[in-house]
Amino acid sequence: MQLHLSTWEEVDSYLSTSKGIIIPIGSTEQHGPNGLIGTDAICPEVIAREVGERTGALVGPTISIGNAQHHLGFSGSVTLRPTTLIAVIKDYVASLARNGFERFYFLNGHGGNIATVGAAFAEIYADYSMAMPGSNRPQVRCVLKNWWDTPGVQALSKELYGDKDGSHATASEVSVTQAAYPDAIKRKEMKQAGRAPRPFADADDYRKLYPDGRIGSDPTLATPEHGKRLIEASASDVIEDYRRFLALD
Amino acid sequence: MQLHLSTWEEVDSYLSTSKGIIIPIGSTEQHGPNGLIGTDAICPEVIAREVGERTGALVGPTISIGNAQHHLGFSGSVTLRPTTLIAVIKDYVASLARNGFERFYFLNGHGGNIATVGAAFAEIYADYSMAMPGSNRPQVRCVLKNWWDTPGVQALSKELYGDKDGSHATASEVSVTQAAYPDAIKRKEMKQAGRAPRPFADADDYRKLYPDGRIGSDPTLATPEHGKRLIEASASDVIEDYRRFLALD
Amino acid sequence: MQLHLSTWEEVDSYLSTSKGIIIPIGSTEQHGPNGLIGTDAICPEVIAREVGERTGALVGPTISIGNAQHHLGFSGSVTLRPTTLIAVIKDYVASLARNGFERFYFLNGHGGNIATVGAAFAEIYADYSMAMPGSNRPQVRCVLKNWWDTPGVQALSKELYGDKDGSHATASEVSVTQAAYPDAIKRKEMKQAGRAPRPFADADDYRKLYPDGRIGSDPTLATPEHGKRLIEASASDVIEDYRRFLALD
Amino acid sequence: MQLHLSTWEEVDSYLSTSKGIIIPIGSTEQHGPNGLIGTDAICPEVIAREVGERTGALVGPTISIGNAQHHLGFSGSVTLRPTTLIAVIKDYVASLARNGFERFYFLNGHGGNIATVGAAFAEIYADYSMAMPGSNRPQVRCVLKNWWDTPGVQALSKELYGDKDGSHATASEVSVTQAAYPDAIKRKEMKQAGRAPRPFADADDYRKLYPDGRIGSDPTLATPEHGKRLIEASASDVIEDYRRFLALD
Amino acid sequence: MQLHLSTWEEVDSYLSTSKGIIIPIGSTEQHGPNGLIGTDAICPEVIAREVGERTGALVGPTISIGNAQHHLGFSGSVTLRPTTLIAVIKDYVASLARNGFERFYFLNGHGGNIATVGAAFAEIYADYSMAMPGSNRPQVRCVLKNWWDTPGVQALSKELYGDKDGSHATASEVSVTQAAYPDAIKRKEMKQAGRAPRPFADADDYRKLYPDGRIGSDPTLATPEHGKRLIEASASDVIEDYRRFLALD
Amino acid sequence: MQLHLSTWEEVDSYLSTSKGIIIPIGSTEQHGPNGLIGTDAICPEVIAREVGERTGALVGPTISIGNAQHHLGFSGSVTLRPTTLIAVIKDYVASLARNGFERFYFLNGHGGNIATVGAAFAEIYADYSMAMPGSNRPQVRCVLKNWWDTPGVQALSKELYGDKDGSHATASEVSVTQAAYPDAIKRKEMKQAGRAPRPFADADDYRKLYPDGRIGSDPTLATPEHGKRLIEASASDVIEDYRRFLALD
Repeated sequence: MQLHLSTWEEVDSYLSTSKGIIIPIGSTEQHGPNGLIGTDAICPEVIAREVGERTGALVGPTISIGNAQHHLGFSGSVTLRPTTLIAVIKDYVASLARNGFERFYFLNGHGGNIATVGAAFAEIYADYSMAMPGSNRPQVRCVLKNWWDTPGVQALSKELYGDKDGSHATASEVSVTQAAYPDAIKRKEMKQAGRAPRPFADADDYRKLYPDGRIGSDPTLATPEHGKRLIEASASDVIEDYRRFLALD
Repeated sequence: MQLHLSTWEEVDSYLSTSKGIIIPIGSTEQHGPNGLIGTDAICPEVIAREVGERTGALVGPTISIGNAQHHLGFSGSVTLRPTTLIAVIKDYVASLARNGFERFYFLNGHGGNIATVGAAFAEIYADYSMAMPGSNRPQVRCVLKNWWDTPGVQALSKELYGDKDGSHATASEVSVTQAAYPDAIKRKEMKQAGRAPRPFADADDYRKLYPDGRIGSDPTLATPEHGKRLIEASASDVIEDYRRFLALD
Repeated sequence: MQLHLSTWEEVDSYLSTSKGIIIPIGSTEQHGPNGLIGTDAICPEVIAREVGERTGALVGPTISIGNAQHHLGFSGSVTLRPTTLIAVIKDYVASLARNGFERFYFLNGHGGNIATVGAAFAEIYADYSMAMPGSNRPQVRCVLKNWWDTPGVQALSKELYGDKDGSHATASEVSVTQAAYPDAIKRKEMKQAGRAPRPFADADDYRKLYPDGRIGSDPTLATPEHGKRLIEASASDVIEDYRRFLALD
Repeated sequence: MQLHLSTWEEVDSYLSTSKGIIIPIGSTEQHGPNGLIGTDAICPEVIAREVGERTGALVGPTISIGNAQHHLGFSGSVTLRPTTLIAVIKDYVASLARNGFERFYFLNGHGGNIATVGAAFAEIYADYSMAMPGSNRPQVRCVLKNWWDTPGVQALSKELYGDKDGSHATASEVSVTQAAYPDAIKRKEMKQAGRAPRPFADADDYRKLYPDGRIGSDPTLATPEHGKRLIEASASDVIEDYRRFLALD
Repeated sequence: MQLHLSTWEEVDSYLSTSKGIIIPIGSTEQHGPNGLIGTDAICPEVIAREVGERTGALVGPTISIGNAQHHLGFSGSVTLRPTTLIAVIKDYVASLARNGFERFYFLNGHGGNIATVGAAFAEIYADYSMAMPGSNRPQVRCVLKNWWDTPGVQALSKELYGDKDGSHATASEVSVTQAAYPDAIKRKEMKQAGRAPRPFADADDYRKLYPDGRIGSDPTLATPEHGKRLIEASASDVIEDYRRFLALD
Repeated sequence: MQLHLSTWEEVDSYLSTSKGIIIPIGSTEQHGPNGLIGTDAICPEVIAREVGERTGALVGPTISIGNAQHHLGFSGSVTLRPTTLIAVIKDYVASLARNGFERFYFLNGHGGNIATVGAAFAEIYADYSMAMPGSNRPQVRCVLKNWWDTPGVQALSKELYGDKDGSHATASEVSVTQAAYPDAIKRKEMKQAGRAPRPFADADDYRKLYPDGRIGSDPTLATPEHGKRLIEASASDVIEDYRRFLALD
């Protein structure tokens, strides 16, 4: 069940059965020579949709712009400042909490979001924790789950790409986008991604380290068929993880 | 050309031919008994995509959550505070300006966004206008265009619905979403939308005035065929309007 | 009744008869060769005072600095960033709401304020709309009215200036200031305001388009007598409009 | 010379002779049984105008709402949060600095503003001080002067009221407003202001301590004639002080 | 009793006897040729600790970075923007208020903090004062006390240094740090601090005026023995002042 | 070398040999029945001091209040909102960057800080990454290192406590504070820390899960001797890690 394709009366009905929602969160940033700029938003969006279809869980609209400051050396990348992203997440959660949602499961497509989303959760909780006893603040629970960080996806990545999946513009994520948008598959030769990863700082630093945008990946290995399997694997694991989350006391 | 389905190298090429981008901006809010919560994001998104396909203009990712505080009396509605939305627009524009974009055409799907987006533009310009001469701030130009506010759409609305299009959860916008998502068409009987519009304030005030969410509309008249014609009509007008915008000295 | 010329006990008495207040809001910005920098604050202030005198409505202190970023190419112009202006309006309203005011009628003197004031209202309402049910937030109603945007003023402008009133540094507003400050009437020859209006962006863009500051106006036509008639006309229309506003359910 | 009664060309001329401006800053808050709510804005405004008339110094529009949170227990009082007031002062100064102003003399009418205005100056300076060497930030100088805190005013207060001037809703400031607005003089009996001043915190605390709003004053002693003398005395001292300020290396 | 050396159960016990806490607040900034960069944090910290030991008053962790923008011309100086410092103080107070603290006594080591801390208190109170009656905001009381601004310290300074104590990098404060950190005593010759104090603005202005960082002081006179006496004198006065503060109705 | 015990001239000398600084960052929050509220600030502070003494690296003043919203159910805990902490870190870094520091090594004592500090780094980098090419922003590099997250400390923890070290109010950290403050060792019996860790949300949730504040630890095992060995082990590892950080190209 997708929020943007539902009516408010359908949401009212849903709320009588569940207080939970899945919110895909990604980024709009370069993904190397053959990766789509929308990769990090597309991946959690299609996986969340799969989860929603299989389980009836409600899926909110994707937060498609995240923290991508380090990719701004490449055209088309878009970032929110972390403090802006915190405000977005806070308003998103508060809006839904107002009408009864209590559990927010953010399905994440971008490693660069993890810290800021964690800070956003703390900012949300702080409103409750710092209020005087008896204040009428919503008490919510939020969690972040990376779509690739599940047993099934890790195993499949190893099987399909061995040590060539890399950590940015990975073969896995490119595969998922190829499954989702088969008309937008890009063919591009590229050299071995040479340099071993080291921590990067700002956009100039990143581009100096990784001139074509990739980190350690060989995304020429990506195929739409891999993508379908990866979506399947991730969705299965996420379904379980989401159920555990809803079941927390 | 859609940003999220492009690579950074494709954007680099695009920038050698154009400094402009179209950014759909909508809202996630109730749209009456048979309207989708995502209506206001879906409409500008599909029209912008149509414009992009016909002209090669680049279309950025949709800002799908806008200013919807007055709809929070209905489940599933999500708002950003105006100051949050201003920050989002500011970061979005600054990110793209950094790599050479200069003209930002926001295609809007929600009347409630107009004021805040205008404030956001002024906030962006103020950074330039308040800086000391010689400061290295980006000089950009932004404009907001409502997808429905074009000669072709107005004429078609009149032809199709006479005075029954209304001003929220309109037959027109519901038609556009039915064209875009034929699998998500909702059937729902509804009474005459009785009350004449009057200015509303907060969410409680809105719901008291418009108990099923509509304002003056009869969205049971909507059909996917209407939607296709409306998309066509809006896209044609927007193409011209966007060209004029790019041509401004 | 003017707030700054009242005592708190007088305001207490007033509150037993009305929960409404009129707040003039303007701008401090260039108004062409013979227009005063304070024009946009002066006009709503004198009209609001007239309304207050005729009806006993309470008039708050004028917000005399608004959104004028586009005029910063001319010396003496002062702007608030939109986010600052939003904060000012929010605090102003919250302060008065605390002691019982519920209806806030902003009488506006500057087109450039409209978007930001609208955003400010949404920001104020959002605090109420996003709060959990039962929260103790003030429920207020705000409206913006442009002093010139009334039937009487439009008719008079047409009668006095035909198509020469223009849209910035208008003959009308200069007349109003001449009526208000007859000792500060400036004589200045000026050329035909040539260029047709087009949307402007930042301060450099504005000054390039409109080198002496006017947009399409011939303010040499202004006279203090016109000003008196315009004040009269606007005040009469505003009185009715304000009454309708107070009477909203 | 008053900014709001000048044209931009007159300001251009002024800037060729001086980089300084005087900005009255006050408050909108209860001033006891016979004091006007606008007292703290009126006093520096009329004194600054006097200074401007005698010396040709430019006087900007009054910041008429300041930090008055402690007076919100009395109807009609309006406050800005300190962080809002800081933003207002920062924007005001930045706007004028952009076109060449360098010295900002805030003539203050309200003790409760002193801390926040000092913080605002530090916030403005910090932008310059924290910038990397070579950054294009404006280098300005700001100062706050209380209109009553001058040798002439102190002597006159002692002469006129002895120890009955008090520290809020003082006989002196009420006199100044009576001189400025003789039609708004209020007659009101009041008891001896009993309690000796002690530090107050929030609005409830203040009202509990000072039930009619005054602190230690007998404003029934105020007369318009006193007001004229006080304006005269303050203006003379301020003229000297402002000259010293402009002469600082 | 020091908060950072206590357990939460000990704080629970403390709260059954007192609602007050002492919070040292200082700065990290140059203190001339032989003064420690931490001087302004060290002084209130050691004096507060002395007070805590003698009386059992709880002492919170020192806010060691304050408003030092004017010292940024000297390496090692660190500042918070005033708005940041306001947020820090607000969160600090809100956290403790949540569990029952009501009286906050800030023992200050830096003149440059006074304005901003005053603004922070007003910001805190404003949250209470602007809230609708019946809101569940904490009602707290805060005060700032400069450690050097007590009868005992003033007398001792006069006795020890006559007119050579100065106003920045004073002999007194250097003495206190020498008592606190005898291993970090610096020997340094320095010239007469020539220039009489005048108000300074930003960091460049300050350094131009006071090239070695001092203002009017001869800190070569400092000794650890003086420091011990000053700590003793200040602590005695602060103990009384703190008791008066707790006793306020 | 400790910044607060240095003079500005010593910092100038230091800058000619290194552009790096170590900044301890902790928290002020409950640490179970026998753990000090300052534990998380004390640990990185003493270890950083050790590193500074052995290597001459400069150590800045400790950020002793961090993100502790989840501990506010226990008296004496103090938190900054994440957005406040981001502002603090940003100002701290900008101040030092202004005079030439380029590498900032945050030695962390609190797991709850990790996300927010990461967001703060991204916020700092974003200022550089989003600026137009040629802007004069500082280019800095920041890293966070948890004092306990080193090979030596992990091995020692295993050796000393097996699986009883836990994850909050650990035996390790309590040992370090006992070494640092032997006079503040608390004796307290406590039950087995029963419940296995699960993710917590706000302060009420945390306290419900972990009634005496610990998570899975047996801090009665702590001794000052352990603390000395842990400090030693951590310092040795941090020295290497810091050198690698400075050596990054």
